[in-house]
Amino acid sequence: MRFILFGQADTLRELVAQHPILADCVEIRHAEQAVSNHEKPSVALRQFKQSSMRLAIDAVKTGEAHCVVSAGNTGALMAMAKFVLRTLPGVDRPAIVSFFPTLKGESAMLDLGANVECDATNLVQFAVMGEAFARTVLGIRQPSVGLLNVGEEELKGKEVLREAADRLRNSILPIRFHGFVEGNDIAAGTVDVIVTDGFTGNVALKTAEGTSKLITTFLREAFESSLLAKIGYLLARRRMNNLRARVDPRRYNGAVFLGLDGIAVKSHGGTDALGFANAIGVAADMTIHGIIDKMKHDIAAVQSASSQEVEGKSE
Amino acid sequence: MRFILFGQADTLRELVAQHPILADCVEIRHAEQAVSNHEKPSVALRQFKQSSMRLAIDAVKTGEAHCVVSAGNTGALMAMAKFVLRTLPGVDRPAIVSFFPTLKGESAMLDLGANVECDATNLVQFAVMGEAFARTVLGIRQPSVGLLNVGEEELKGKEVLREAADRLRNSILPIRFHGFVEGNDIAAGTVDVIVTDGFTGNVALKTAEGTSKLITTFLREAFESSLLAKIGYLLARRRMNNLRARVDPRRYNGAVFLGLDGIAVKSHGGTDALGFANAIGVAADMTIHGIIDKMKHDIAAVQSASSQEVEGKSE
Repeated sequence: MRFILFGQADTLRELVAQHPILADCVEIRHAEQAVSNHEKPSVALRQFKQSSMRLAIDAVKTGEAHCVVSAGNTGALMAMAKFVLRTLPGVDRPAIVSFFPTLKGESAMLDLGANVECDATNLVQFAVMGEAFARTVLGIRQPSVGLLNVGEEELKGKEVLREAADRLRNSILPIRFHGFVEGNDIAAGTVDVIVTDGFTGNVALKTAEGTSKLITTFLREAFESSLLAKIGYLLARRRMNNLRARVDPRRYNGAVFLGLDGIAVKSHGGTDALGFANAIGVAADMTIHGIIDKMKHDIAAVQSASSQEVEGKSE
Repeated sequence: MRFILFGQADTLRELVAQHPILADCVEIRHAEQAVSNHEKPSVALRQFKQSSMRLAIDAVKTGEAHCVVSAGNTGALMAMAKFVLRTLPGVDRPAIVSFFPTLKGESAMLDLGANVECDATNLVQFAVMGEAFARTVLGIRQPSVGLLNVGEEELKGKEVLREAADRLRNSILPIRFHGFVEGNDIAAGTVDVIVTDGFTGNVALKTAEGTSKLITTFLREAFESSLLAKIGYLLARRRMNNLRARVDPRRYNGAVFLGLDGIAVKSHGGTDALGFANAIGVAADMTIHGIIDKMKHDIAAVQSASSQEVEGKSE
């Protein structure tokens, strides 16, 4: 693996020099500008064409880099990546996907916030893209896909969900569609891919993060609340560390803008070296397993299935 | 407190006889029918007029009972309660509210699933009703109210949320409106009342339940995974039990159909005596603190504020 680092060349050179092992695999490119976190996406797009973020995305467009990983401003990265890399043929809107621990292993969910409102076509495309993500990044051979709803019954929930479910049940599609799932199915790992609109997905993701923080805070308070509990913690410490590792957000760092004609991964801004390495790992997995070609193929299959269905109905 | 129990009189009599303390405060009414869990709400409404559920709701309507608590079919209870008790003047749609533990204490959230799609007027009414609930059941003097969104900025999210927020910021309203909150603010306890549509609220509630189950399962596995960890657990057991009590779902049992002209509380079907007692406690708190009159007063204030605003604009 080789890296091109975009940013203040002097600063980068000093940092890289501290790790001699990087000398042969890192190339530094100076960027005059940097997109700060409070910059609006539209402004970033127009006024930051010489920023480290933009130059890194441009490198993917020209083919010089296989993928881009950034811990910067999410909205700016999304806007620039969409503008420079363009969406895949047949994809109406890119979505943000990420993965997380479940009772059964790991699952992926999308959209996590790129599209506040979605129609049935968007949701079907998210299902196809998310399935390709689960195959390439999570290594699941035939991922199951569920549509997030407020009940498992076919008649429940919003009209747009029933329409998307009808289309995903179409057996011509190369997707193992499970049907509707509910909020508790996310952590249960009932399906490998959870499909939802960007509003619901964002609320669900942040609700899970908040709940996780609540319980671990209560747990820490319980362990610190008496001498016996403290000794108990010391004895159980190794296993507690295993538990912590299982839900460590750094392991699940790396949200992907899926549906672009290029690979762009967003790292949490506040992560450390381990977390950022995992985000790079996500980008590398997607590159090595050729996710872009797989998605192009699958999206074409969906379009063909839809048109066959239309023809079938009109006969 | 006195109870009227509706159901199979013979069975109820046997059960009550086992607790002599109940002899003076319990009255038994026989009901020929019982609404099962798979019954559709529309069918329950038409064909189960002599059911225990319906007779209990009728008792609230006639004034014989102050409130009804049921652990039965949610949809049927909602449909019957709405039909018999009617909605409060000025309330377009009742909502389901419940409360849960947070880092700061307890908060309430609504709607948890009664209304899959909501407009700005519904959300403003939910805010008023939820605020009254937090005052009467949670005992918070001036509850803060937040609107669930995908970002805290005023321009983010859905149009309907921006419209509801604009109206809630109107200083004439008797509500301490915090503004937008995100999914992680639910467990953080950023506000006392979270307002959202029934789809998002249901997904958030179930996502939190699923996450909580995931972490406690991981925790149990960690404690059982080695002898040292087991000993550690024994030493910390008392504090661990405190932790369990803090997040015990039985403490938070009792979802309320808010916005009806009468008090109807839904208990979890799978709860035990402690959980059901808590649901009764919720109904009692609402009765004692006169929540119905408070809501009538507040809803009238909102309507008056809205019409003043309209007059103000047309001047």
